[in-house]
Amino acid sequence: MIKHSFKNDYSELVHPEILNAWSRIGVGQFEGYGLDDYSLNAALLIKEKLKAPQADIHFLAGGTQGNLVIISSVLRPHEAVIACETGHIATHETGAIEATGHKILTVQGEAGKLTPKLIEDVVEEHSDEHMVKPRLVFISMATELGTVYTLAEMEAISACCKNHDLYLHLDGARLGTGLNSSFCDITYHHLAKLVDVLYLGGTKNGALFGEAVVIFNPSLMTDFRYLIKQRGAMLAKGAALGITFETLFKQIKASNSDSVALVSEKPDTCGLGANGLEVGSIVEEYQLDLYDRLAIHANDMAYQLATGIKELGFSFLSEPQTNQIFPILPVSIWKEMKKTYHFHEWGSNWEDQEMVPVRLVTSWATTPDVVGGFLLDLEECSQQI
Amino acid sequence: MIKHSFKNDYSELVHPEILNAWSRIGVGQFEGYGLDDYSLNAALLIKEKLKAPQADIHFLAGGTQGNLVIISSVLRPHEAVIACETGHIATHETGAIEATGHKILTVQGEAGKLTPKLIEDVVEEHSDEHMVKPRLVFISMATELGTVYTLAEMEAISACCKNHDLYLHLDGARLGTGLNSSFCDITYHHLAKLVDVLYLGGTKNGALFGEAVVIFNPSLMTDFRYLIKQRGAMLAKGAALGITFETLFKQIKASNSDSVALVSEKPDTCGLGANGLEVGSIVEEYQLDLYDRLAIHANDMAYQLATGIKELGFSFLSEPQTNQIFPILPVSIWKEMKKTYHFHEWGSNWEDQEMVPVRLVTSWATTPDVVGGFLLDLEECSQQI
Amino acid sequence: MIKHSFKNDYSELVHPEILNAWSRIGVGQFEGYGLDDYSLNAALLIKEKLKAPQADIHFLAGGTQGNLVIISSVLRPHEAVIACETGHIATHETGAIEATGHKILTVQGEAGKLTPKLIEDVVEEHSDEHMVKPRLVFISMATELGTVYTLAEMEAISACCKNHDLYLHLDGARLGTGLNSSFCDITYHHLAKLVDVLYLGGTKNGALFGEAVVIFNPSLMTDFRYLIKQRGAMLAKGAALGITFETLFKQIKASNSDSVALVSEKPDTCGLGANGLEVGSIVEEYQLDLYDRLAIHANDMAYQLATGIKELGFSFLSEPQTNQIFPILPVSIWKEMKKTYHFHEWGSNWEDQEMVPVRLVTSWATTPDVVGGFLLDLEECSQQI
Amino acid sequence: MIKHSFKNDYSELVHPEILNAWSRIGVGQFEGYGLDDYSLNAALLIKEKLKAPQADIHFLAGGTQGNLVIISSVLRPHEAVIACETGHIATHETGAIEATGHKILTVQGEAGKLTPKLIEDVVEEHSDEHMVKPRLVFISMATELGTVYTLAEMEAISACCKNHDLYLHLDGARLGTGLNSSFCDITYHHLAKLVDVLYLGGTKNGALFGEAVVIFNPSLMTDFRYLIKQRGAMLAKGAALGITFETLFKQIKASNSDSVALVSEKPDTCGLGANGLEVGSIVEEYQLDLYDRLAIHANDMAYQLATGIKELGFSFLSEPQTNQIFPILPVSIWKEMKKTYHFHEWGSNWEDQEMVPVRLVTSWATTPDVVGGFLLDLEECSQQI
Repeated sequence: MIKHSFKNDYSELVHPEILNAWSRIGVGQFEGYGLDDYSLNAALLIKEKLKAPQADIHFLAGGTQGNLVIISSVLRPHEAVIACETGHIATHETGAIEATGHKILTVQGEAGKLTPKLIEDVVEEHSDEHMVKPRLVFISMATELGTVYTLAEMEAISACCKNHDLYLHLDGARLGTGLNSSFCDITYHHLAKLVDVLYLGGTKNGALFGEAVVIFNPSLMTDFRYLIKQRGAMLAKGAALGITFETLFKQIKASNSDSVALVSEKPDTCGLGANGLEVGSIVEEYQLDLYDRLAIHANDMAYQLATGIKELGFSFLSEPQTNQIFPILPVSIWKEMKKTYHFHEWGSNWEDQEMVPVRLVTSWATTPDVVGGFLLDLEECSQQI
Repeated sequence: MIKHSFKNDYSELVHPEILNAWSRIGVGQFEGYGLDDYSLNAALLIKEKLKAPQADIHFLAGGTQGNLVIISSVLRPHEAVIACETGHIATHETGAIEATGHKILTVQGEAGKLTPKLIEDVVEEHSDEHMVKPRLVFISMATELGTVYTLAEMEAISACCKNHDLYLHLDGARLGTGLNSSFCDITYHHLAKLVDVLYLGGTKNGALFGEAVVIFNPSLMTDFRYLIKQRGAMLAKGAALGITFETLFKQIKASNSDSVALVSEKPDTCGLGANGLEVGSIVEEYQLDLYDRLAIHANDMAYQLATGIKELGFSFLSEPQTNQIFPILPVSIWKEMKKTYHFHEWGSNWEDQEMVPVRLVTSWATTPDVVGGFLLDLEECSQQI
Repeated sequence: MIKHSFKNDYSELVHPEILNAWSRIGVGQFEGYGLDDYSLNAALLIKEKLKAPQADIHFLAGGTQGNLVIISSVLRPHEAVIACETGHIATHETGAIEATGHKILTVQGEAGKLTPKLIEDVVEEHSDEHMVKPRLVFISMATELGTVYTLAEMEAISACCKNHDLYLHLDGARLGTGLNSSFCDITYHHLAKLVDVLYLGGTKNGALFGEAVVIFNPSLMTDFRYLIKQRGAMLAKGAALGITFETLFKQIKASNSDSVALVSEKPDTCGLGANGLEVGSIVEEYQLDLYDRLAIHANDMAYQLATGIKELGFSFLSEPQTNQIFPILPVSIWKEMKKTYHFHEWGSNWEDQEMVPVRLVTSWATTPDVVGGFLLDLEECSQQI
Repeated sequence: MIKHSFKNDYSELVHPEILNAWSRIGVGQFEGYGLDDYSLNAALLIKEKLKAPQADIHFLAGGTQGNLVIISSVLRPHEAVIACETGHIATHETGAIEATGHKILTVQGEAGKLTPKLIEDVVEEHSDEHMVKPRLVFISMATELGTVYTLAEMEAISACCKNHDLYLHLDGARLGTGLNSSFCDITYHHLAKLVDVLYLGGTKNGALFGEAVVIFNPSLMTDFRYLIKQRGAMLAKGAALGITFETLFKQIKASNSDSVALVSEKPDTCGLGANGLEVGSIVEEYQLDLYDRLAIHANDMAYQLATGIKELGFSFLSEPQTNQIFPILPVSIWKEMKKTYHFHEWGSNWEDQEMVPVRLVTSWATTPDVVGGFLLDLEECSQQI
């Protein structure tokens, strides 16, 4: 009997506010393929949030689509991507980038992160036409190891890319938990200066589906919709994505009645109490949009989990900074906990090891009760063994 | 002021039963990537409906994805597709098939349909290794011109494909209106014998999104999920698609109370009265699942529209057989009707012509009132000019 | 017993001057991959001949390579090629262009030639992101039907391309016979103004192998060698191509002794007498390089053949203008001539026809005797039937 | 002033016997595209040499072509290659394999060689459809580090591949020097049992150009010529390759007069004396075909070079086993030797190092004098510093 799955942050279907917004549309008609008013408005909200009025915004269904459409749009056939070995495109997209014709040059990152030095080493190695030409740097935020870049780190990478004529693409499948991490001093406003293009994830932050591609570099904007269509990533009912992102990013009006209405609508399962957004709380607390509130909640749940695990004496593969944490468990405890919880292991061949790094992921829907229950079970399990 | 859009059958978001089904899930957890129980059950329902227990079923977000994943999975690099010039892959998918490396060999179809003769001519022309090798035949049902194949026609094509070692793929973006057409004697049960693979469309028949790939030919099943993932077509929250297709294909229990309950839930906008499924009607009428009911309704609306237009004396580009009809209007009437209705023209350069073929599409959500209103407006417009 | 093959202009291995030039190198060492001095010098000779000092020159082994490397270098993934249905890339390169991801939009040409009107029709049809974007126009010279563009025709196409932001690529597999045709008023000097890029064929004009890519448009030059290497088209011993093109394009010094030496070296099989370049003739006649001399000879042989066939009363599929001619023969004569000559038929299903268009190709090595023999045999055959 | 280049084994144009064979053809006509009698006969000679009468043989111009045509013919889109990091396809083919859509999974080899353990680790890591599926193993012989597999090593790899349903492809650009290495106990006869497909290199063993693809596994034979054509790798004058390989592999008749004639034709530059094949020597010594004789000579020259370098006290990056050797020189000596000899360095950043590994390559045309001269210069240089 499984009590809960910590396998990922997309185990629950969709935040009810999005479902409600869809429901309100009824059989109203709209333009197809993302040319509807909802998508237009959602794009405006995102540009406002990023303080990037000149950006181009496009909504896609999933993250692999985001990466493959962006990269195949940007690169000529002989140009390649630099990424960490742990980068999602390098390992978990079934060769999606290579299937569009491009090599990924991987380096061993530091806690899932690239550095200027790692990038420059690759550039220097690739000196003539017998090798691919590095042209785009792929980073993730939060990374696949749950870590975040600091502003200084990302500025250094950004400068390095400019020096070497490399585009910088940020995979923001978990941008919400990344930017809302206590360990991250980068804000939404910094992004336009730092990267050429990114996608900002909805799927892992409460949406049923949806990722928003944000192109800052004007030279990468031309004909982008052609690429979306060609790769099968243009949703006929694009309005569904527009409404999703409208719901995630709309600014809450600072009137008492509105905010109260909102709070009373809030589902208990969201557990927003955890980050102080209680039912009936006053207006000023509602400056945060749904996107940030959900990310903050997921992080808070992960921090509680991490704190509890640390107190039980376990160490971590990487510093817990967002909603993915990687405690290292003795194999006996690991086996016991697998009986009642779902989660992934990290690496392979863990059957033969004494210690197994596992990945626990919290989401917008994880409750403090679930976290507390897991910690109790882990404590009990530790004592028995 | 636009009264209604007849541009396509995906102008309305989603049938409320699907939304309700999603809503009932709440924050219940499920496996990712289509491995959840809803998807499993939806696959069973489809296999039952098609009487194809051995088929492989996969759910994708959109139709272009369906075509490109299927075709790139099936063909070796030098193998090509035979399709009508009007085929969706040939004109309106931005070279999606070519982007996976395959040529499409187009022929001028007959009312949007292929014939064995047309196929064989292509096969005969391609005789050696200096030319691509035709290996897959692409047909649509309903076709891009709203027409349907008869059983005899499709059996002939199927036999022709087997003779020439060609796979037969059916684009069923509008399979519901196709099979439910009064002009079509093919049933769901015939399909497994006729084609190697198809996809069955949800987007154009009430779903927010979703197409179901059905692979009948066992030799085409191997590793299909790898292809889905590689092309960015594997939805993280695949359960959303599973629930969608469960809702569309679930069999209505033959108990009075159930059926009545169902009927009373039915939204007015669905206008099911049009095909005789009235509120309070008796049990036997409810053997149809939602998928067929919505398709029948869309066809009925189109037939009413076509009948009215014929009575006003206009001819058609192709016989109205499904929910896409192509009346030919004098340019003055066309211009007038454009002021209050949205629809597409067929072909190009219509500004210079006397007569303009237009495409009117009805959907599950089109009401008799809208149809009646359009006919009145058209009549009035005809009299004035 | 076959007397001669008129199947194509690459049935004989190589002109002896090229073989001699290779032989003179012995075991001298050179840089690999086309960075040798011979290639450098050959590039200079071509630039001089084309009066295009800024052009970029690259040597490849074959014509399909030329087309696929150029096109895949120039286009973004959603961009397409416009070509005649008879265009080599459209029919006889086994989908090589599609294999690099690009659609070819074909139109029915006029005697194998495109026109501005045909190009513009395609551009107008492709108006939005649901269709590919036409971006490069492919023409051949001489065409696949043996015809040539006039300067006025090509200037009109060139202007049309500039107006519509289309690149113009010329497949010059038979540029020698094209430009040296009596029907062509375009010279080598015009090309830089007319097209963005071309390749100039050696294989069909005396070389063992080798095509020279000439890029005039500076924006298409970047990183071209990467593309050559990536597509497997960079020859390790590029010097072999350099020496080939040096031999074909080197200017004959205007000293008596040189020219005489050259003439006496000339193999009898080359039959240069046909265009007036006789052994022992005076210096001034040797302003032509080997490339033009071989092309002129091939054309002369074709003209003799065409004249004789016309005199026998047969008509032609297209006006004989270069070294490919297309007489139309009664099926009985066709069958008889096939017994002693090799040649290709044009089109298909000729078994069922009364008249069969055939293709006769002459080359640098075709002799007047062979031409005379064929005409006698055809005359005899006509009389018998 | 450069005395000699040891940069590679394709710095000299072509062995004179090949040139002579081409010359003998004159203007004789032949079928195009490798369907000529020379190619047919060359294929027979290779099948005889490999004792593989059922094999399919195809001739291509270059090695990158060989690898990309084979791999793209064999793999479905989601399938990947396993190779050493040093593998030619992984580093020095400008992403040619990825450009056909396939990921290369690299491992750190041992002296340029794969092992079953390295292969199995990759297979185990790739367990589901979120990752590519390893399907083909790429090995080189001789390797890019000049090393060779033993029969036991290759049998183990072959068995491992069969166990894991992996195809085994051997890049034999230097198969001649590999199999003729004193360190290699594999013969031509073993290959059909060991690998599924290979290509056997001419370019690096005396040919002007040309590699022979040999397909042993019948399931990989279908339509291979289509793939060759599609990738631009089908030479119009395929006879040139046929004649090349006929010359390289023809068996010398065991009659005295023949052998003597052959020996007297032998060019001095070939330095065959080094492996005991002297002018006027008796019949039995002529069992070796030109291919093996040239490879043996290249190896002999490398062994002399290696022995001399060892005697001067230098060590090697990998054991000298074939015609590529990798001595490690002090930076001062390296700089001095660069003044009079051309060769490549191995790795990068050697400016900052004390010791620089360099690569010296000998060829069929390297003479004992050149080797002796280099050793003298190195000795002198060592003493001065």
